[in-house]
Amino acid sequence: MTISIHVDQIEVPLKTGIDIRNITDRLSRIVSESNITEGHLSATVVGSTGSITTIEYEPGVVSDLKRAINELAPPDREYAHEEAWHDGNGHSHVQAALLGPSISVPVRKGRMRLGAWQQVVLINHDNRSRKRTVEVTVIGAG
Amino acid sequence: MTISIHVDQIEVPLKTGIDIRNITDRLSRIVSESNITEGHLSATVVGSTGSITTIEYEPGVVSDLKRAINELAPPDREYAHEEAWHDGNGHSHVQAALLGPSISVPVRKGRMRLGAWQQVVLINHDNRSRKRTVEVTVIGAG
Amino acid sequence: MTISIHVDQIEVPLKTGIDIRNITDRLSRIVSESNITEGHLSATVVGSTGSITTIEYEPGVVSDLKRAINELAPPDREYAHEEAWHDGNGHSHVQAALLGPSISVPVRKGRMRLGAWQQVVLINHDNRSRKRTVEVTVIGAG
Repeated sequence: MTISIHVDQIEVPLKTGIDIRNITDRLSRIVSESNITEGHLSATVVGSTGSITTIEYEPGVVSDLKRAINELAPPDREYAHEEAWHDGNGHSHVQAALLGPSISVPVRKGRMRLGAWQQVVLINHDNRSRKRTVEVTVIGAG
Repeated sequence: MTISIHVDQIEVPLKTGIDIRNITDRLSRIVSESNITEGHLSATVVGSTGSITTIEYEPGVVSDLKRAINELAPPDREYAHEEAWHDGNGHSHVQAALLGPSISVPVRKGRMRLGAWQQVVLINHDNRSRKRTVEVTVIGAG
Repeated sequence: MTISIHVDQIEVPLKTGIDIRNITDRLSRIVSESNITEGHLSATVVGSTGSITTIEYEPGVVSDLKRAINELAPPDREYAHEEAWHDGNGHSHVQAALLGPSISVPVRKGRMRLGAWQQVVLINHDNRSRKRTVEVTVIGAG
């Protein structure tokens, strides 16, 4: 088997946080274009107030996850980040750091291998709308 | 060095969540079979109510981690997920999303490089027993 | 494109936890030495009381993140881990497991691709100073 690599990026306009967006279809398209059949995909959000994970993307879970994230670092507390920067997004930085910026998704038979009810989501934690870049690296045989 | 790839999967029967299972030995066996000596292993759980991380796998830490996870998203709260689905696992989805589905483990000298007291664990957050699939991708030289 | 791999490690002396250290420059140097231009870097901390994520590395966010992590698993609670081990770091194990030991960073044009205000940090959660090893694997074309 010859191993190859395919790099790409997607840009996703996100609303004021917490905004949770399903990016599965866009990642799937990159896997198709890569012609890689067996390997894995790494996706990493560029910027320190975004994160990536997987969920069952339905309105209930989206709402429940927002509540939980806002309890990890509530927007209405005081943050030391504000003392220097006064941009009101101290909670955004903490939330994003706890969730983490990257994920690895298996590629099998030329497609991402996820559960039937499992989607990859990009989260904007920032207190303003942001266009987020996700860097995507697919490595494997094909 | 020639780079090669080895893909495999393990199936793990898990009890009603929170169930935390040590999968280190099963991943180690896959690394051995891969004949890859220098590289890394990606492991991703298939399904949106499972997660993967590392811990010192001893009963005390297992118990402490369960408590902390149940405080992140307590089973006895109300969840919007329930309004549509009524399957009682709203907390499971939130817990799994916060922990994340994937991990990267270094491979050195033909073995996973972990701490002496560090094991890879698969977690079932669901409110029923589940057989979980973990997809494993090893990439490297060997 | 020929795919190659470069493995290395860094050792980082860390103070009693929570200590959050910026390791971006050290990872950047490894990427430069790898001569890999397009791919990704995996970094994993060895040991079960350390973690890795990204933040805007400035004193305010560092302080805010410490507070949030200590709320996830407060040092002054009772932990089952203590009953057997009496080493006072039950909270350290829980904190590290929730944050996770590994990260994937894209490599583009021979450099790590991060946001302008996004740095990779290594965190010591342990209740004593530790010299931590981070294993680094760079895979890609170059």
